[in-house]
Amino acid sequence: MLGQSIRARIEAMLPRGLSAWAEAAKSWRPRVKSRLERFADRRAFWAAFVGRAWAGAERAPEEADFEALLAGTPERRGGSVTLVGAGPGDPELLTMKAVRALQTATIILHDDLVAPEILDLARREAVRIAVGKRGHGPSVRQSEIDSRLVALAQAGETVVRLKGGDPLIFGRATEEIEACRAAGIAVEIIPGISAAQGAAAALGFSLTERRVARRIQFVTGHGADGELPADLDWSSVADPAATTIVYMPRATMSQFAAAAIAAGLDPATPALAVANATRADQNHVAASLASIAGLAEGLPAGAPVILIVGQVARSATEAVKLLRAA
Amino acid sequence: MLGQSIRARIEAMLPRGLSAWAEAAKSWRPRVKSRLERFADRRAFWAAFVGRAWAGAERAPEEADFEALLAGTPERRGGSVTLVGAGPGDPELLTMKAVRALQTATIILHDDLVAPEILDLARREAVRIAVGKRGHGPSVRQSEIDSRLVALAQAGETVVRLKGGDPLIFGRATEEIEACRAAGIAVEIIPGISAAQGAAAALGFSLTERRVARRIQFVTGHGADGELPADLDWSSVADPAATTIVYMPRATMSQFAAAAIAAGLDPATPALAVANATRADQNHVAASLASIAGLAEGLPAGAPVILIVGQVARSATEAVKLLRAA
Repeated sequence: MLGQSIRARIEAMLPRGLSAWAEAAKSWRPRVKSRLERFADRRAFWAAFVGRAWAGAERAPEEADFEALLAGTPERRGGSVTLVGAGPGDPELLTMKAVRALQTATIILHDDLVAPEILDLARREAVRIAVGKRGHGPSVRQSEIDSRLVALAQAGETVVRLKGGDPLIFGRATEEIEACRAAGIAVEIIPGISAAQGAAAALGFSLTERRVARRIQFVTGHGADGELPADLDWSSVADPAATTIVYMPRATMSQFAAAAIAAGLDPATPALAVANATRADQNHVAASLASIAGLAEGLPAGAPVILIVGQVARSATEAVKLLRAA
Repeated sequence: MLGQSIRARIEAMLPRGLSAWAEAAKSWRPRVKSRLERFADRRAFWAAFVGRAWAGAERAPEEADFEALLAGTPERRGGSVTLVGAGPGDPELLTMKAVRALQTATIILHDDLVAPEILDLARREAVRIAVGKRGHGPSVRQSEIDSRLVALAQAGETVVRLKGGDPLIFGRATEEIEACRAAGIAVEIIPGISAAQGAAAALGFSLTERRVARRIQFVTGHGADGELPADLDWSSVADPAATTIVYMPRATMSQFAAAAIAAGLDPATPALAVANATRADQNHVAASLASIAGLAEGLPAGAPVILIVGQVARSATEAVKLLRAA
């Protein structure tokens, strides 16, 4: 029965069109054999076929696919870049689309903080390269990452740029997208669950709430120079009916709290700092805005942290107790 | 080779611990046979075993699991509720965790707008019940949904409450979480890709940008009474360095634009209304804030729409052209 259930689930996970590609493989085999004499060429054909089948699983294979594969795989000739969101930490929070991208990549450029269990989802032969630590200043310069992406795609690689959380939320995606476009390279983006979404789900509360939180906002505690951004709109942070999430808040948390209070936010506003959200070693402290920074210093050094400020955080401590009891 | 590649991908998708459960099934079989005489009881044991294996795939099965299953499955006795994010539309944008929840559910209460292809990911025998249309006023009252969740879980069902996007972002999750907790029912939350994340990824731009968008905010165009919320913080919307995303904006878009402009936002600010984000029938219009509402009227009636306002939307039209050309 477990076997049956596994098969049913696998069927649901596999793209519907894949069986059409398997059929095509069967019917193309004699032609491939007659048109490609060398074993190595046939092997290359079928390797490219697999990549194409996964990439095009939503549609049926056509004669044009056969010809394109025969002419040399366009993926290997043109290369491509896909920005992929790795989610907050739990490998199960990757989207199915992200997993598929990892499994068609030939090279993966990933943030240092992406967990090994997530990299394990990629195909074995893919080359993995760590670039940059989020939240602690890049270990590789952004411009260098941009040029590497372009150079690898130009060399024909199927490149995945794997970023923690959602690449479109404080992921510096614009620089990479623009660099690729300027070089004429196709870019695809696969969104990811952002840390705030993961943390709230793990701690069991909603980020919006009819009565008390009709606006959510994401800001960064870490500007271009590593300082709290000078041009943050503090009146928007002072709004008592908003949920504010601060990404990369560690270095500037006490400054942030002081400035928010100075702008008019109640020092008693609930605040929650979550480290390693959704990972097995998730850890958090809950307090008032006025005292959160002191408590957050106790969170593990080097761990990625987010700060959630607003009435929605009020129930977090209680919620955790209930979840544990359940 | 396609077969090999499929197997490798399946292995990556399957929880690592599942093989330990398969081993346990083998070694427990004689004991189950001797302790449960009736075929129906053994069948029930193994059905519950499968659910438990998937739910506990990260850990190895223990003797306590055997005893609990033998005593009658706690899931069937206690029942549970899992709030699951269905993502913006593309079934591939569900997380692996969401797919797994759909495949262990006995009953699924879903928003009307959740696509049939997403419901297809659930196991065949699960009962599917449509409740409520997002953005067009609930067809089932929230309090009724709350009581149904509680009653079903109390009856021993494994209930999934499937919501479009992320249940924690304008998903009215708080009411459902609180109703369950008040009744002593275990609630789990699985986040989803929100419409804004999906739309930006599909159109190829980042929601944040170093120079022009250091703050993102999500607001709703649809308050408790279906009107534009009266207490929205308009000065935060008027901030030219923010990206503002309006959920359920259709009925109040011209009011929203007028109020934002009255609060000081440049009428020429780029704006983008996206219908059916990430679905095959995705559709969008791009314009200035001053003229977006008129154009958005042309979007398909009944389709879910989000409005994105800010400098990040400037490149959307151009980006789409590039993506198509690629």
